[in-house]
Amino acid sequence: MRRLPLSLLAASLMLAIGTANAATQTTVPAAAVKSAEQLRDKAMSDNTGYQIVESLTTEVGPRLAGSPADARGREWAIAKFKALGFDKVYTEEVSYPLWERRSEHAEIVAPFPQPLALIALGYSAATPKGGLTAEVVRFDSLDALKKADPASVKGKIVFVDAHMTRQKDGRDYAIGSGVRVGGPVIASKMGAAAFLLRSAGTDAHSRTPHTGVTGFKDPKDAIPAAALSNPDADQLTRVLAYGKPVSIKLDLDCGITGTYKGANVIGEVTGKKHPDQVVVIGGHLDSWDPGTGAIDDGAGVAIAMAAGKLIHDMPQRPDRTIRVIAFANEEMGLWGGRAYAEKHAAEVSKFQLGSESDFGARKVWRMGASVKPEARGAIDQIAKMLAPIGVDYDGKMPGGGGSDLSQMHAKGMAALSLTQDGTDYFDFHHTANDTLDKIDPKELAQNVAVYATFSYMAAQADGDFGSAPGAFANDGAEE
Amino acid sequence: MRRLPLSLLAASLMLAIGTANAATQTTVPAAAVKSAEQLRDKAMSDNTGYQIVESLTTEVGPRLAGSPADARGREWAIAKFKALGFDKVYTEEVSYPLWERRSEHAEIVAPFPQPLALIALGYSAATPKGGLTAEVVRFDSLDALKKADPASVKGKIVFVDAHMTRQKDGRDYAIGSGVRVGGPVIASKMGAAAFLLRSAGTDAHSRTPHTGVTGFKDPKDAIPAAALSNPDADQLTRVLAYGKPVSIKLDLDCGITGTYKGANVIGEVTGKKHPDQVVVIGGHLDSWDPGTGAIDDGAGVAIAMAAGKLIHDMPQRPDRTIRVIAFANEEMGLWGGRAYAEKHAAEVSKFQLGSESDFGARKVWRMGASVKPEARGAIDQIAKMLAPIGVDYDGKMPGGGGSDLSQMHAKGMAALSLTQDGTDYFDFHHTANDTLDKIDPKELAQNVAVYATFSYMAAQADGDFGSAPGAFANDGAEE
Repeated sequence: MRRLPLSLLAASLMLAIGTANAATQTTVPAAAVKSAEQLRDKAMSDNTGYQIVESLTTEVGPRLAGSPADARGREWAIAKFKALGFDKVYTEEVSYPLWERRSEHAEIVAPFPQPLALIALGYSAATPKGGLTAEVVRFDSLDALKKADPASVKGKIVFVDAHMTRQKDGRDYAIGSGVRVGGPVIASKMGAAAFLLRSAGTDAHSRTPHTGVTGFKDPKDAIPAAALSNPDADQLTRVLAYGKPVSIKLDLDCGITGTYKGANVIGEVTGKKHPDQVVVIGGHLDSWDPGTGAIDDGAGVAIAMAAGKLIHDMPQRPDRTIRVIAFANEEMGLWGGRAYAEKHAAEVSKFQLGSESDFGARKVWRMGASVKPEARGAIDQIAKMLAPIGVDYDGKMPGGGGSDLSQMHAKGMAALSLTQDGTDYFDFHHTANDTLDKIDPKELAQNVAVYATFSYMAAQADGDFGSAPGAFANDGAEE
Repeated sequence: MRRLPLSLLAASLMLAIGTANAATQTTVPAAAVKSAEQLRDKAMSDNTGYQIVESLTTEVGPRLAGSPADARGREWAIAKFKALGFDKVYTEEVSYPLWERRSEHAEIVAPFPQPLALIALGYSAATPKGGLTAEVVRFDSLDALKKADPASVKGKIVFVDAHMTRQKDGRDYAIGSGVRVGGPVIASKMGAAAFLLRSAGTDAHSRTPHTGVTGFKDPKDAIPAAALSNPDADQLTRVLAYGKPVSIKLDLDCGITGTYKGANVIGEVTGKKHPDQVVVIGGHLDSWDPGTGAIDDGAGVAIAMAAGKLIHDMPQRPDRTIRVIAFANEEMGLWGGRAYAEKHAAEVSKFQLGSESDFGARKVWRMGASVKPEARGAIDQIAKMLAPIGVDYDGKMPGGGGSDLSQMHAKGMAALSLTQDGTDYFDFHHTANDTLDKIDPKELAQNVAVYATFSYMAAQADGDFGSAPGAFANDGAEE
């Protein structure tokens, strides 16, 4: 157990005294604080979250957006919300381009013939039938590619070989995802035949390549694009170091085949006092296909569902509605989150507070908030409740709401950021190794405790957190 | 640095004094001991071994016996022996059944459709075109399968789900390889449609299945047989726990297509006094195909080649010949080792001492010896030389000679066992993760030092180690 330093405790007390009579200040009533403490402690030793993610990853497994498993995932979510006793369960349609993966192979043809382990990226084009053979040209970074003479790249397979290292906050993902999203587009514009990157991952010794989406907006611009595992990127670099021309044969069968109609699946615990005002939490239901989408993002769905279920099981319904959203197709471009924000933008003031979990299943260690100044007292109360279970409140960090809910936050929804320990997240992210065994039930329970506690306290607060059209346009949170 | 306890030092000294005048005792002359010490220390900071294994795994990559890469591996070995300056380089033919892997897929069909990561085992039969779908029946152990009613297995896919844990001496491999070699044969006899096992590996969280050979002696008896990765075995067990019939579709395209003529590749540093007497060391040149055969057994080949090279580079040739053998097709049944022993059985008395490295590239920590009693003094001298670099001499442990050379030992060759630290060996063994990055150059150099030192001291010894037809028939070493 971690405790607040005395100085912080004193500051909290002074803040509470100082704001007690200010009618414009948002606060959580004492009775709700007491109930929240019981809820938190119950959640810490409850295994509902783990049971949910075990059920999803076992019964549905991989859930590539638009695949047959996507539909099975929705059926699973509807049934699970109902089985958990949510008051209202419904879906909202989300349409997006249907990208299919069929097969992928690669081999070094010369000078040293041998297979390479790789995986096609989202929205990658297929290679011509029978494959594509071309010389490889390697760059250390995206910047080096940008500065290259297009003539040196034309007709070749561009290989960008940037490294990521493990970080608690996962900040190196900016490097890896930058290469993966931006690199293929740049290479395509420069006339490259295909694009390869060193996987955006921190598992230096594992032959499991990391897939993920590219930035191709128009299928006409797409070229074949894939990720090599880290050891394969090492191997290709060693082969290139012999100084001889290196040619690779790529055989990717994948591409966009039409439009798919999926859906966000939503479960609600109906508020008894303000049913139209909602605290919104969630995760995304789709996953990349090589793994079973346990940490990305079965965990997020499970955390939010379990938090809702624990609030549902309290003696009384909360004052405001708890809305749990299992988003559609986050992976290929926040399709579920964008559709949701478009549909609900006009009601943004009804969104009390929101946060989505989409950074794995390790313990939450940090909280940031984007709320109106008058709601900082309530945020302090939430922070005080979460401190004993290991969450540090960073008053300077904005609350972006998480991946899909970042879109609702961009419309003006007050939001939190709840950061999990991401040290090993990018070892497994978007790979075959994203499986249930990566989740520690006790760490997952801490996440459920965090989400249940903040959701309940926000639902019971006297006052709001400042949601309004465009309210947090310049808070610095990522969208 | 580790040092001999004083009591052992005293014992060694007394032994040396006590045996100095006994003409029948084998000893290493003082000048050779001094040269061996210099050789050992030079080897500890020499990177020839790492350069060799880097060259093999980069330029040839995976080397499945009988594949096109097998021939490239032989060409590589011949060229490398010559480049290193060995006095004599030659090959000896080895014939064996040619088993080919073409493709492998598996999926759970019901109740929860999803793909499974698996790899076909050596000598596995193919499934019928279009795949084989059958119900799964699970057993905790090979014993449980043996005790099962054949009627409960007939027409089904047998799944044996035995676990291995990490051990320094790798002893749990007896469990895993027991299931992999014996299980398919037993299942076939009981009428099973196919055989699956939990990979014989200790990487509990990696989706990289472990291949390896089965015990099928006659292709007519072979059924489709494959290994699931550990997380996939967990997943299948979870699915089975729902209590509903579980069916799997297996699609394995592989099988025996003929006979292949490969070869052991041999390099020698010719002895100046007794060129016909040989110290023999080696590794196996073939590897399983998912990885690049770095720890199994590029390392062994590199350790032995580098040891030979370091002895070659001494001011004078050794008294006896140092023979380095890169064996053919160890993986599918010691074909290279058996062919070698058959061919050279009559000359067994000329084999001074032998040992093969085939347990990875971690530091050697233990030595055992099967030698005549009169050679224990020389073994003590070798042990004393290896103790400072971390090798404990276990006087009760037999010296089996290693995988292929176990066959020559069985004919009567005096032999050592030099055990590497195998704690993480079965994380990578026979998987896609057996790649160069698993080898630490400093640990590999310690191996080279061990092999160079013992080889040189044995080559210079006054007297032999007891090799003779059938000399060590009952020493307890594994064949």
